[in-house]
Amino acid sequence: MLTQIRLLVPVLALALAGRAAAEAPAPAAEPLLGFSHDHASAERDLEARFDAVLDAANLRQWMQRITSHPHHVGSPWDKANAEFMAGLFRSWGYQTQIEQFKVLFPTPKVRLLEMEAPTRFKASLAEPPVPGDSTSGQTAEQLPLYNAYSIDGDVTGELVYVNFGVPKDYEELQRRGIDVKGRIVIARYAGSWRGIKPKVAAEHGAIGCIIFSDPHEDGYYRGDVYPKGGYRNDRSGQRGSVADMPLYAGDPLTPGVGATEDAKRLDVKSAPTITKIPVLPISYGDALPLLQALGGPMAPEDWRGSLPIPYHLGAGPARVHLKLAFNWDLAPLYDVIARLPGAERPDEWVIRGNHHDGWVNGATDPVSGLVAELEEARALGELAKTGWKPKRTIVYAAWDGEEPGLLGSTEWAETHAAELRDHAVVYVNSDSNSRGFFNAGGSHTLETFVGQVVRDVRDPEKGISVLDRSLARAALTGPAERQQEARTGKRLRLEPLGSGSDYTPFLQHLGISALNIGYGGESEYGQYHSAYDSFDHFLRFGDPKFEYGVTLAKTGGRLVLRLADADVLPLTFDPFTAAVGKYVDEVVKLTDTLRQEAEERNQRLDDKVFQAVDDPTQTWVAPPRLNPAPYLNFAPLQNAAAALKQSTAAYDKAWAAATAGGRALPPETANRLNEILMKSERVLTRTEGLPRRSWYVHQIYAPGFYTGYGVKTLPAVREALEQRNWKEATDEIPIVAATIEGFAREIDRATAVLGTK
Amino acid sequence: MLTQIRLLVPVLALALAGRAAAEAPAPAAEPLLGFSHDHASAERDLEARFDAVLDAANLRQWMQRITSHPHHVGSPWDKANAEFMAGLFRSWGYQTQIEQFKVLFPTPKVRLLEMEAPTRFKASLAEPPVPGDSTSGQTAEQLPLYNAYSIDGDVTGELVYVNFGVPKDYEELQRRGIDVKGRIVIARYAGSWRGIKPKVAAEHGAIGCIIFSDPHEDGYYRGDVYPKGGYRNDRSGQRGSVADMPLYAGDPLTPGVGATEDAKRLDVKSAPTITKIPVLPISYGDALPLLQALGGPMAPEDWRGSLPIPYHLGAGPARVHLKLAFNWDLAPLYDVIARLPGAERPDEWVIRGNHHDGWVNGATDPVSGLVAELEEARALGELAKTGWKPKRTIVYAAWDGEEPGLLGSTEWAETHAAELRDHAVVYVNSDSNSRGFFNAGGSHTLETFVGQVVRDVRDPEKGISVLDRSLARAALTGPAERQQEARTGKRLRLEPLGSGSDYTPFLQHLGISALNIGYGGESEYGQYHSAYDSFDHFLRFGDPKFEYGVTLAKTGGRLVLRLADADVLPLTFDPFTAAVGKYVDEVVKLTDTLRQEAEERNQRLDDKVFQAVDDPTQTWVAPPRLNPAPYLNFAPLQNAAAALKQSTAAYDKAWAAATAGGRALPPETANRLNEILMKSERVLTRTEGLPRRSWYVHQIYAPGFYTGYGVKTLPAVREALEQRNWKEATDEIPIVAATIEGFAREIDRATAVLGTK
Repeated sequence: MLTQIRLLVPVLALALAGRAAAEAPAPAAEPLLGFSHDHASAERDLEARFDAVLDAANLRQWMQRITSHPHHVGSPWDKANAEFMAGLFRSWGYQTQIEQFKVLFPTPKVRLLEMEAPTRFKASLAEPPVPGDSTSGQTAEQLPLYNAYSIDGDVTGELVYVNFGVPKDYEELQRRGIDVKGRIVIARYAGSWRGIKPKVAAEHGAIGCIIFSDPHEDGYYRGDVYPKGGYRNDRSGQRGSVADMPLYAGDPLTPGVGATEDAKRLDVKSAPTITKIPVLPISYGDALPLLQALGGPMAPEDWRGSLPIPYHLGAGPARVHLKLAFNWDLAPLYDVIARLPGAERPDEWVIRGNHHDGWVNGATDPVSGLVAELEEARALGELAKTGWKPKRTIVYAAWDGEEPGLLGSTEWAETHAAELRDHAVVYVNSDSNSRGFFNAGGSHTLETFVGQVVRDVRDPEKGISVLDRSLARAALTGPAERQQEARTGKRLRLEPLGSGSDYTPFLQHLGISALNIGYGGESEYGQYHSAYDSFDHFLRFGDPKFEYGVTLAKTGGRLVLRLADADVLPLTFDPFTAAVGKYVDEVVKLTDTLRQEAEERNQRLDDKVFQAVDDPTQTWVAPPRLNPAPYLNFAPLQNAAAALKQSTAAYDKAWAAATAGGRALPPETANRLNEILMKSERVLTRTEGLPRRSWYVHQIYAPGFYTGYGVKTLPAVREALEQRNWKEATDEIPIVAATIEGFAREIDRATAVLGTK
Repeated sequence: MLTQIRLLVPVLALALAGRAAAEAPAPAAEPLLGFSHDHASAERDLEARFDAVLDAANLRQWMQRITSHPHHVGSPWDKANAEFMAGLFRSWGYQTQIEQFKVLFPTPKVRLLEMEAPTRFKASLAEPPVPGDSTSGQTAEQLPLYNAYSIDGDVTGELVYVNFGVPKDYEELQRRGIDVKGRIVIARYAGSWRGIKPKVAAEHGAIGCIIFSDPHEDGYYRGDVYPKGGYRNDRSGQRGSVADMPLYAGDPLTPGVGATEDAKRLDVKSAPTITKIPVLPISYGDALPLLQALGGPMAPEDWRGSLPIPYHLGAGPARVHLKLAFNWDLAPLYDVIARLPGAERPDEWVIRGNHHDGWVNGATDPVSGLVAELEEARALGELAKTGWKPKRTIVYAAWDGEEPGLLGSTEWAETHAAELRDHAVVYVNSDSNSRGFFNAGGSHTLETFVGQVVRDVRDPEKGISVLDRSLARAALTGPAERQQEARTGKRLRLEPLGSGSDYTPFLQHLGISALNIGYGGESEYGQYHSAYDSFDHFLRFGDPKFEYGVTLAKTGGRLVLRLADADVLPLTFDPFTAAVGKYVDEVVKLTDTLRQEAEERNQRLDDKVFQAVDDPTQTWVAPPRLNPAPYLNFAPLQNAAAALKQSTAAYDKAWAAATAGGRALPPETANRLNEILMKSERVLTRTEGLPRRSWYVHQIYAPGFYTGYGVKTLPAVREALEQRNWKEATDEIPIVAATIEGFAREIDRATAVLGTK
């Protein structure tokens, strides 16, 4: 396979030469953040050479190979892929090793879901082979439909439909007098990360949880279903982890430490991230008879999906039996780690990663991103063979075990925590990729830098820059305030990161500046975590020409190249300062909103408005009184945000003076500045972590305790407010403020360095 | 039948006595608009006696009788019902006659809808009998599913899905490069009055129009379907008129004049309100195979309904053949008109109406409102038998032919136009009625009055006033600005009237102050214009105990009693002045919005935003440039609104002075004031009518030319703006302003009358 690829390269080089010429390298007039005027020109040349090496045929070939069998954690093909990739990296000149860990990875022994009343029905729980999808028939090798880290269970009870299964859904049920205690809930996917659904269900006393893919979010409502179109068909379901990842990521048995061979492990029974009740994902074909058998009141209008039935809430008369048992075995992880040592600053590591494990064949998730990363690494290897050496060390990682819970990245990050805190510059992540628009999230200190990178990459469909296409979309369909800014300000904005891919351990556990990048929005995306996420699917509906794979390689490659070679690390403080200012305003406003909500709710109760309106022929329960929101002292946060603004302005002024005319900083100044910039994100962490979840130490960004993937900024304060825990919010405000003040002082240190040139 | 009802009355009188005592009559402390302090007390006693006569058993019995057979225009039971009701009115002491008209009423000869490609399918177009619905089997007597005033046609073409079929939907199709020219459109019900759909389709070159009931708006998405629940099942469709009613209401052959035996009639071929293309309504069961066979791009997300398919736009490959032929016969109308002559002011007529024709058995629509009106009339008759005589003449009307196009009311109003302009005080309309909340629309001069009436009627389910329940709903679910007002201001608000029931000829053609009242919002309303709008359906899902029928009788009865007996007609100008002020602000703001829209659209075109964003693998057409909105001179309208405000304030001051302490006006003053108040609405009309539709003469309220039932306030100006016809808007502003100024002068005349006491 490898040989075959090598053979192709010279043949395709001819075509590449022509394409490279058509590409627009960064216009010479435009600055490159982190590079002096002189060095910028060399960097531009390097990037043009980098682009010229990239070849879509490699992406296609690698994807076909890697996805040719199911390659989940513990499968033979998972290991084979790791070895294949390690071989590639070595052949490209990287110092490569496979790092192994041993993690808890449950696989199903028993999966039974049957309805006992009012009629009998047994769920098929199977994704059959479909014509035109050559790997969909590999049923013997596939992990079946299940949710990893569901507890074992054998429960029978009345069914209740709980919408997305988030806390506010239970308030609606309470309004209708419906209690899930002792019952089994059926929730639809979306509206929260899946692991939130069984967690909240268990908090409310449910004994089991079924999660189905509603065709509204993930099926024919979106478009033609597979194999006619790319969207989810009535037999397809969504696998996925339901571990309580907002508590900690990684192996449930080794929180905070690497899951090495001899690591101290928790007992499975006491592992806090394993669910409290059994959970099973099903297709909408299997869900239909269950939902159809529900009686009780109609679900609120925005709970109703696209199945051709009235969505009732229950409880019952549908009564279901859910029986689940798992092999609670340890499984090996194979992280591929490949280094290109830095020639000038080897102790500063630029880390680039994408996972390689899939739930089944995993073509889109994660191989579409993985093959772009591989091609990026190959191209850097080619540059290195021509004599180029990165100033800083570059580390390429292909993580195993992302799907069950960011296992490979987390265990590696925990194992190497001390080194990483010392040496990591930035972690750049990618994952699924397909045709469409650039999407990026990450540390706001990297926002300006990312905007410059995509200014210099061309969209393959449109011949304009990726930045311009992204801005055009924001100008057309963004939120009102963003539309104007996208049109006139021409600034890329980074989304803050919650969770959902391998950046989490780096950013939120170790305080390493991180990015998550990818393209998408023009694919027919209905194969997520199913047996149909195949090469055949991707070729028809993902990125048929692998153009966006190559574009991702160009993007990731530029990020890595500039980070590795910059005179001064390309971080800026303005976007971060603006973002923090906005978050502070938001939590202040949130408190006002919560106050108004309580006043309104309680006034309505006093006015007996619910009694006056509710239909007396149905069961309605007036909502509970709300604990009124006091006025909180936000001054520490507001003063911290003001200090940050002031420090940033001073830094910008010093920077402008020191680099006027694009001149380079004196080496000593640059060294001292790099030292500060590299570790600046660390200052945003706090050893004690967030309340009740010490693994998460970042004080600005965290996955929501009740949203999962969804980000909460200033999480300690924001989540306390959302829980109406005024005491905790009061306690956390000065703590978060002190963190921000600390960051401002770090900026002042950087300013002082600039002043001493 | 009549005898049987009479026998029941004494038996039930005992029960009534108890119930009347439980009712809260208007608290003595509260004022009654239009009555001096002394007269108010007598009015309260009269209303208590009125309430005591009302009996739910009558409503039930009459509904059962009237709905026992299909009773559409031209059917034997339509005539029988008219004769039955005339007999009732006579027995209650009313001077009663049946007024006949002869109107064009097409009924189907041929209805064929079949798909020829890509597969063959023939639509059933039939609503089968269902168990538990005793009239659903009267198929021989039923009008089948059809749209009245569709033209004959025999067309074959590719199908295109056009969402609601309103103008902006065609803009979306244009964006996707889809033209309906020479094709057949399929539109879903809702989003506009049905007659707009074929009108707009024909304007865009379509050759046929199919309208289906999507389960999202009208089917299982709402709840269990009939007969399990009350919602529309997969075989049920919505009959209805598709005449271009926004042009003129009533018989298409006799615009503006009564359709008497010897009226001059247009030729059917030249009647402008008949559709330009054939139109047929179908069930969602019949629509499913057609929609499923569509290819082409996916419909925009908010176009997708609740059928279990991807909603594609077409055009084709579905190719359908639509063949329709009608009997273009004249049919008789039977309007029942019953008078109770006024003792003091016989030439001032208070008119109360509800239609009696149904599309099939019509239990909810219209008999639920009709039987309340009948009971109301009976109770007034009972009061009259005890010696009470109304001061003003009361006219009860049961209209025929409302369903095909407000025929009975319109032809009667046109026939008696001159008398009505001289004598009509107010027209009070009702139509469908069911359990729930009070809804009212009408002339804003009546807003204060209606608020007082429902303050004095008790909600049967809640034991609080109808007003308080209505306000509670507004406080809970109303628009944000209304919530606060509902809670603190405690004011009922009238909706402005568009069209959709028999008030239109009175209000918008003759300038008679009008109201439309009814209860609803707690029924399972899925039988509209179907064969399942039956007595059995109503008993289960409408108003099983006829409590809200009795409540409607109390409401309508109080309106009629107070209007008939008031010392001074209970009109106030403040709410009208506030409403007009709001409408003027709206049209000014609308111009700004249209200007911004054009600027934004054109800027986006200049920036090539659409080219940058649109998926190149699909067909996308950038939208056209928009004609920029100039700055218009709204000063005449703003000055008129200011004058209105000033005149109203002066009137209020004069009124307060003249009636301080609840004292009566001197009779001569009251007479002269009544004369002005009675005809005040006439001043809001203009003989020339609205641009391109001279039948509609009201300058404040009209049904929208492109919305149908939906109201357009200040229509001449607003619709010109919406059409971006700046010239016409410029011309109409001073005309509408002059109308409003004229009304202000009329108020000044009233003020002068008060000043001369």
